[in-house]
Amino acid sequence: MKKLDFIKYCFVSLFLLLSVLNTYANDGYKLWLQYRLIEGEGLRESYRSNIQELVPLGDSKTIEIALNELQVGLKGMLGQEYLSVERESIKNSLVFGRKENLPQTIIGFFDKGYHQINQEGFIIRSITVKGKKQLVITGKTDVGVLYGVHHFLRLLQTNQAIGKLNIVDSPKLKVRVLNHWDNLDRTVERGYSGGSIWDWHRLPDFIDQRYIDYARANASIGINGTVLTNVNANALILTPQYIEKVKVLADVFRPYGIKVYLTARFSAPIEIGGLKTADPLDAEVISWWKGKAARIYAEIPDFGGFLVKANSEGQPGPQNYGRNHVDGANMLADAVAPFGGIIMWRAFVYAENSSDDRAKEAYSEFVPYDGQFKDNVLVQVKNGPIDFQPREPFHPMFGAMPKTPLMIEFQITQEYLGCSTHSVFLSTLFEEVLASDTDRKCKGSTVAKVIDGSLSNKKLTGMAGVSNIGTDRNWTGNVFLQANWYSFGRLAWNPYMKSADIADEWIRATFSNDKAFVQPVKAFMLQSREATVNYMTPLGLHHIMAAGHHYGPGPWVDIFERAEWNSVYFHKADTLGVGFDRSTTGSNAVGQYAPEVARMFNDINTCPEEYLLWFHHVPWNYRLKNGQSLWNGMALKYQEGVDTVAAMVKTWSSLEGYVDSQRFNEMNMLLDIQYKEAKWWRDSCLLYFQRFSKMELPEGVEKPTRTLEYFQSLEFPFAPGHH
Amino acid sequence: MKKLDFIKYCFVSLFLLLSVLNTYANDGYKLWLQYRLIEGEGLRESYRSNIQELVPLGDSKTIEIALNELQVGLKGMLGQEYLSVERESIKNSLVFGRKENLPQTIIGFFDKGYHQINQEGFIIRSITVKGKKQLVITGKTDVGVLYGVHHFLRLLQTNQAIGKLNIVDSPKLKVRVLNHWDNLDRTVERGYSGGSIWDWHRLPDFIDQRYIDYARANASIGINGTVLTNVNANALILTPQYIEKVKVLADVFRPYGIKVYLTARFSAPIEIGGLKTADPLDAEVISWWKGKAARIYAEIPDFGGFLVKANSEGQPGPQNYGRNHVDGANMLADAVAPFGGIIMWRAFVYAENSSDDRAKEAYSEFVPYDGQFKDNVLVQVKNGPIDFQPREPFHPMFGAMPKTPLMIEFQITQEYLGCSTHSVFLSTLFEEVLASDTDRKCKGSTVAKVIDGSLSNKKLTGMAGVSNIGTDRNWTGNVFLQANWYSFGRLAWNPYMKSADIADEWIRATFSNDKAFVQPVKAFMLQSREATVNYMTPLGLHHIMAAGHHYGPGPWVDIFERAEWNSVYFHKADTLGVGFDRSTTGSNAVGQYAPEVARMFNDINTCPEEYLLWFHHVPWNYRLKNGQSLWNGMALKYQEGVDTVAAMVKTWSSLEGYVDSQRFNEMNMLLDIQYKEAKWWRDSCLLYFQRFSKMELPEGVEKPTRTLEYFQSLEFPFAPGHH
Repeated sequence: MKKLDFIKYCFVSLFLLLSVLNTYANDGYKLWLQYRLIEGEGLRESYRSNIQELVPLGDSKTIEIALNELQVGLKGMLGQEYLSVERESIKNSLVFGRKENLPQTIIGFFDKGYHQINQEGFIIRSITVKGKKQLVITGKTDVGVLYGVHHFLRLLQTNQAIGKLNIVDSPKLKVRVLNHWDNLDRTVERGYSGGSIWDWHRLPDFIDQRYIDYARANASIGINGTVLTNVNANALILTPQYIEKVKVLADVFRPYGIKVYLTARFSAPIEIGGLKTADPLDAEVISWWKGKAARIYAEIPDFGGFLVKANSEGQPGPQNYGRNHVDGANMLADAVAPFGGIIMWRAFVYAENSSDDRAKEAYSEFVPYDGQFKDNVLVQVKNGPIDFQPREPFHPMFGAMPKTPLMIEFQITQEYLGCSTHSVFLSTLFEEVLASDTDRKCKGSTVAKVIDGSLSNKKLTGMAGVSNIGTDRNWTGNVFLQANWYSFGRLAWNPYMKSADIADEWIRATFSNDKAFVQPVKAFMLQSREATVNYMTPLGLHHIMAAGHHYGPGPWVDIFERAEWNSVYFHKADTLGVGFDRSTTGSNAVGQYAPEVARMFNDINTCPEEYLLWFHHVPWNYRLKNGQSLWNGMALKYQEGVDTVAAMVKTWSSLEGYVDSQRFNEMNMLLDIQYKEAKWWRDSCLLYFQRFSKMELPEGVEKPTRTLEYFQSLEFPFAPGHH
Repeated sequence: MKKLDFIKYCFVSLFLLLSVLNTYANDGYKLWLQYRLIEGEGLRESYRSNIQELVPLGDSKTIEIALNELQVGLKGMLGQEYLSVERESIKNSLVFGRKENLPQTIIGFFDKGYHQINQEGFIIRSITVKGKKQLVITGKTDVGVLYGVHHFLRLLQTNQAIGKLNIVDSPKLKVRVLNHWDNLDRTVERGYSGGSIWDWHRLPDFIDQRYIDYARANASIGINGTVLTNVNANALILTPQYIEKVKVLADVFRPYGIKVYLTARFSAPIEIGGLKTADPLDAEVISWWKGKAARIYAEIPDFGGFLVKANSEGQPGPQNYGRNHVDGANMLADAVAPFGGIIMWRAFVYAENSSDDRAKEAYSEFVPYDGQFKDNVLVQVKNGPIDFQPREPFHPMFGAMPKTPLMIEFQITQEYLGCSTHSVFLSTLFEEVLASDTDRKCKGSTVAKVIDGSLSNKKLTGMAGVSNIGTDRNWTGNVFLQANWYSFGRLAWNPYMKSADIADEWIRATFSNDKAFVQPVKAFMLQSREATVNYMTPLGLHHIMAAGHHYGPGPWVDIFERAEWNSVYFHKADTLGVGFDRSTTGSNAVGQYAPEVARMFNDINTCPEEYLLWFHHVPWNYRLKNGQSLWNGMALKYQEGVDTVAAMVKTWSSLEGYVDSQRFNEMNMLLDIQYKEAKWWRDSCLLYFQRFSKMELPEGVEKPTRTLEYFQSLEFPFAPGHH
């Protein structure tokens, strides 16, 4: 064919291929690993000149995965196929392997770095050997190298320079785990993204592609563990029939550096062991758990251990036998200790009978045990003293148990924050808690310092996130909420990261590096959680969601026998005012904090207004710092929340050109729902509280178009996530 | 840039794009609408020369959809972008539009065709106008045109010549509906492909891309209706809160020619209407349903109507008030008649108390009502008299109610055929039933002729398929089972189609036109259902699945109070023999068939051996036609089933080069499971029946490696689909 014809042919073929590409809608399945072609030819060329070939060192499955990730990532971003080559490279190469596999000629470059990193850390450094540039990614383990590879790919995803790299990084927490509240029937408690991704029925023989992609995504953000089953546990998961299935998942996850954990139902020795008791001091029970652990470890040598919810919300536990949490946790800890396993024992407890203040229960029950838990026990404490509210003060246990390793539990799934329809970037919530000063040792004794072990020299550290992952094609039911999985992983790696930086990374990797897109989206992400606090529970209000499924407003809920299951217990609105008096004149929950913190919260004048109604019962005409009465200020906060969502809707709808149509349209629809529901929250809460304040809505707050009776009549018998 | 550089640039870019393409794994989401690039350049070129441009006529949403489908399909298959052009074409064009939108210059070509087709039919014809070839797709309605467009695309997908087309086709059945047994909580009764695709919680505001792709897929095979909800119905679907959601689905589906239907819970007037009764002759009840229908039609003017399961398996119905099926069906029929709606009244009934033979119940109850149902009632009859077994004789009601329009109900989801792990091509089952001769009017009075109305001149005709669709990425939990959805649609369009032709189409559209792939895959698809009959229920055995979830073998089930819930009721094995005597010496179920058919089934010598144990209690040493004793023959049939699956495993694993890796690997894993479970069926059934026959396994049958007690001890508390 003639040259011109050939050129024409090339053009036609290009067009053809571009067209075929076009037919692939972006359903979000690829998460933040989109690896889109980098837009500037100059930048692409500079990356290409730095990476002319890939030199993998080592032949483990993990290195194979790292190589594959680089090949997929670079092919996508640079439009170039990369084969791997042997060590003797004559070009600028990207070399990756763990310390013992590095050639002696270059190992010296990393001596200092190896001293700085832990077993999971990595070094990325540009060196020059024999006139050729080498980009080296190394660590003490292959998994460290894999983390380095993901970090490196992220540099490209976010269009950063890679000419002179010298990065030394290690995770600051040891146990970085997702908690799946997934039931064996594939429902997910508080799950809003379809069903459980664990297809137990088809395991162990069918390995769903999702398992691999799940592991890949987690490895890319440093998550190194997954608790497969619900804390409201079913003992059957510990039977051989299921262990065989769990083993297959463990085998899939292992090369990605991910360990599996299971929830242990405390009464399992009775239910599946045929014993008459589950008393943790009973010899048969002790022996049963030791045997069970041994059998699990025979199948899964690196099994992580157990997560336990005991004597809470009706779950069985040591107290059923007159024992305590220490007895229960230590018995299990002994069973897994020979194999290197750990126990994560939840502090989210719920007394059999109502107490004077639910916020005080965990602290009251656990703090006296400080120092009594075995070394391989982590006490897992929710971020706040109630239950994953849009805003809570930090949990008073943080800093109060210096002899006990505490891990923090965040909820990534949005039980109380609008399910998966509301686009709330939770990173700012996580960051706010982590940066909170417990003031236990000294000023600056933040929650982050408690959980990373630096405050009290703890080796065993961790962070748990209740997963928002389900079978929905985009994993999280809403593309935006992928950012919460992402930010959880990043903060578990480094609890000092800033949400703004995390958002920046995530937006660039997921959507676009175009400033005109990144800036406005980042801005609204960073506002989004405050908006939700405002339209749901401003000024320290909490737990006024509808009963049971927690979908939508329900400040009027007062139907339950147990006081603390009712909204009215938490807001205590009356004609005088609103709010839960937890000051020294009330429940004295403030007394669970360090003296300085307690003083601050206790005094209505120093208590931050975002916690005002958390700690104080405040008169309706109390003057807020902005000069408004409490009533007017509350109403204006509700309005502000709605207005912020309206602005989010507007911003997103202006960005059509920057996003593929499917993700763009889906976000548009979801933001419209959020806007509608923000107004529903505002109107129903204000109408309800107005019955007590008996005051008019201030100027600037839209008048409700429905009656309180209407809102109270709404029922949602099939709201998701409620089992 | 210089020419050579430019050529190089083209090459690089091509390579780049091909590489990016490579990273898309094929997860099967696109079903049979893969539209892969046609492999032969010659064939592609010939298609291109016949289709140089697209000329859509008409501006409806349906025509827009047809245009879009052509653009996507042709782009994929021909690698060329097609824009639509105005009528005045100067090239070989593809013209499509309904009769009234066709230019007068060409309308004459189709006069004869228009007389031959019905409202949903189409004509595809090549004509020459002013020296230019025009391929015209037309019909009386835009939906007819859309069906024609899909038919045309299928010609290309299967690499057929399109130079001289003259195709005139119409669906032979009027109501071609999927029945979703989907619950409002998103579980699916007998669903093995994840949860329900209807995200009721997010409706009406969130339109999942799945809804659109579901409609597209159904339109492509001629399905024109969908019953959204489970026959075990929840009355809430009829409340305004849900009707608002249903309306949105109806709006999405309408331009694809798909109507929505709902299941009506007979007791809804009590549950959501506040009435004290649901008596179909009660004036208030009658008025309530009329009002309900009016309100639904106000939102959904083309609402299809109701499907009702009444007085069956505990569902409420007219008999609760001393009325009968006619009273119930006609009352509802009157409610929807003013709006053109229909009632599909299921004949699958279940008496309150056990009868002598469950197989006889539907016939006994319904046949006396022949001629009493209103014109807009279809009585929906399962394909066989029991319940979707791997093989049943045709249902005796077919042909026995000449004055009543009967529609047939098939089960596409595999409640009794290995869930979604067993790759069973059900088309041969459907075909076998449709081709069965009821012999009611004369020889050749097949079930197909009953249901297409031709035997007794019925206008209202239909076929229902219990959907196998769920939220799994590949829709049906197993790529192969997409073929069952496909074949249901094709047979609902034309109940005389051959399974071999359907398989051929489906394989080519879904995977490859390569003979080396098509032939062996087609061969094993056509064998697959017989294999399942053999390893589960050979020689007329039936309903010996495990209790409740029906997963796996359970011939020993005898725990239920109601006789016909137990396997032993169905096989009646004893030391003398096995099988249910339904001959004149037994329950005389044969008496429900036409005399010739009854005689054939009644006489053990003329009864086809595939129905032997369905109709007869047969001694273990009875001589089969092949000379084997019944016991040996049964054992060998079980072995044959296993062997066929082994061959399927082998065939598929030899075809690696022809399929993308994801679909290839998934099928490999699933076939391995099927093989394992086929052996499980064989071993446990033979061990069980051996207790009665007391005979040795014949040569050629593998010895079980586990005991009967082991098989009986297996429990699957979370087997899917059981709610």
